[in-house]
Amino acid sequence: MAENPVRFGIIGCAEIARKVARAIDLAPNSILYAIASRSIEKAKNFAATNGLTENVKIYGSYDQVLDDPCVDAVYMPLPTSLHVHWAVLAACKKKHLLLEKPTALDVAELDQILEACESNGVQFMDGSMWLHHPRTAKMKDLLSNYSGQLNFIHSQSTSLATPEFLESNIRVKPDLDALGALGDLAWYCIEAILWAKDYQLPTIVTALPDVTRNLAGVILSCTASLHWDQPDTTVATIHCSFLSHSSMDLAICASKGSLHVKDFIIPYQEHSASFDFTLGSKFVDLHIGWSVKPEEVCVTSQLPQEALMVQELARLVEGIRKSKFRPDSKWPEISRKTQLVMDAVKKSIDLGCKPVNL
Amino acid sequence: MAENPVRFGIIGCAEIARKVARAIDLAPNSILYAIASRSIEKAKNFAATNGLTENVKIYGSYDQVLDDPCVDAVYMPLPTSLHVHWAVLAACKKKHLLLEKPTALDVAELDQILEACESNGVQFMDGSMWLHHPRTAKMKDLLSNYSGQLNFIHSQSTSLATPEFLESNIRVKPDLDALGALGDLAWYCIEAILWAKDYQLPTIVTALPDVTRNLAGVILSCTASLHWDQPDTTVATIHCSFLSHSSMDLAICASKGSLHVKDFIIPYQEHSASFDFTLGSKFVDLHIGWSVKPEEVCVTSQLPQEALMVQELARLVEGIRKSKFRPDSKWPEISRKTQLVMDAVKKSIDLGCKPVNL
Repeated sequence: MAENPVRFGIIGCAEIARKVARAIDLAPNSILYAIASRSIEKAKNFAATNGLTENVKIYGSYDQVLDDPCVDAVYMPLPTSLHVHWAVLAACKKKHLLLEKPTALDVAELDQILEACESNGVQFMDGSMWLHHPRTAKMKDLLSNYSGQLNFIHSQSTSLATPEFLESNIRVKPDLDALGALGDLAWYCIEAILWAKDYQLPTIVTALPDVTRNLAGVILSCTASLHWDQPDTTVATIHCSFLSHSSMDLAICASKGSLHVKDFIIPYQEHSASFDFTLGSKFVDLHIGWSVKPEEVCVTSQLPQEALMVQELARLVEGIRKSKFRPDSKWPEISRKTQLVMDAVKKSIDLGCKPVNL
Repeated sequence: MAENPVRFGIIGCAEIARKVARAIDLAPNSILYAIASRSIEKAKNFAATNGLTENVKIYGSYDQVLDDPCVDAVYMPLPTSLHVHWAVLAACKKKHLLLEKPTALDVAELDQILEACESNGVQFMDGSMWLHHPRTAKMKDLLSNYSGQLNFIHSQSTSLATPEFLESNIRVKPDLDALGALGDLAWYCIEAILWAKDYQLPTIVTALPDVTRNLAGVILSCTASLHWDQPDTTVATIHCSFLSHSSMDLAICASKGSLHVKDFIIPYQEHSASFDFTLGSKFVDLHIGWSVKPEEVCVTSQLPQEALMVQELARLVEGIRKSKFRPDSKWPEISRKTQLVMDAVKKSIDLGCKPVNL
């Protein structure tokens, strides 16, 4: 454990907060200092259910966490519609911010949050855990150094919702998570494609006429395509759905190789994750087979990806605290570009699948 | 070897003919009886290079094969623009027909071929080998019986062309294979998606603004989406390209399971092929992993898929020859639907990516 670990407060006792509370505990440079729910009972229950130590402060309002001078950083798994209010407030109270995705309902809201972080000198990071897995770095290494030009990328994220989820979960409620599956699932697909493209924004985003909404108008399933013209032509497709079996696919087809991963958002298991990489394969004589089969590249990780995420944020906070660094602009930039493309998908859907230029 | 094997003639000594000549040899109910090229030298060279026995007749014109009364069936790997002429002629000469894909430049041409086959009582089949692999039947079994509703399908076929191919291969020549990568590669993607959908035609086909053509206007790369409204909503995307590394992906996402195969057109190796199937997976507590990992389903095959294709055609021919059966309408129907959807993709491309209703 570091000498002065970064002290985290969690605002909102959502299911995902259990995973991040554990990650804060696992990361060597952070501790869970406080949790808050809108009701003290819910917060107490969360603490008891998840075996939090008695050292963790339990608050019955979000403000108490933000007003606690001992809290360095806040993890905020609130419904998306509440992000702009609480995230701006947290930044103004000089709390570094780990904000669950989707970061906001649109980029205008996100910009308010990012401006608050910027002007208050606090670090911003969204809760995309997969970006912190060493597998992700390994995939990038192989793509950058061996694969040649990226021509086609497909990414999908699906998760079969239960009838109860479809009826009452915040992710299908227009006043809470109005972006539905687009925000909850396609966020990752968009982010993965931007990651593959070194965060170059696409020139055109077009939704496909495949939008399923619930009675309240919230997106349950949709598909879209992204295009890049310059310097290289790339096309990418994304698909997200609450109506299909779990899938987390990323398939990249480049001029010299291809990459396939089926669990890029949440690896099948902790501590070890893999992907398939195929390089320079041709067909053997008579075209009765391939000269090279995919190689399964396996990457181990001592800490789970969510703990690596917390560790990275805490590392940046330590640097800022010691006045060694300014907040790192990499993470807010990734979030902002992801949000921008997500906005464009939504706009294209709203325009009846017309192409949207970025 | 069967008592009266079906005697095949090959019209056109294309590279793919080497593979099919071997398949005719491997299939237990067929023999290679004759080969023809437009020049006797090329035919002789083909025979010598591929170790054909002296029993195989060598002809210097296609007509000689069609006029040989001993030839029961013809395999025709000619450039697509020549199909309608030679295939109709073959049918009129009562030759059963194994026609390389794409079957024709458009469905109007294919209909001429199919009508000639129908009126002459000969069997028609296109050269899609993968449909005959036992893996394909195993995938269908699992999809039909366990996966629930098919919601999203992605298929791609890419193959990195050499500079010589891009300059001089028939597949990029407007007067020979005017459909380019769409005909040569996307044929399989469309067919695979129709196969998954039990050959129900989509209602809407839409090309995406991602078409690369050569200077002569032949498609080198394109992407499209297919939609079904009734009885189930399904969306599918296809991508084909001569500009990317080899890929042959089919990924199916259904309500209860998912299927992934990366070599569906030509398996990595003969005699054994596999796919990944995931059923009923949920996330474990804390969402730190999956409850079920994909199962690698392996299917062995004594004969390669192209020999199984020849065997199936020869089996149908035997039945017709013994007047036990009429030609099987299954195979021409599959070809026709594939061609119809391919036509729709081309039409959508030509209309600037407007949706085309089927």
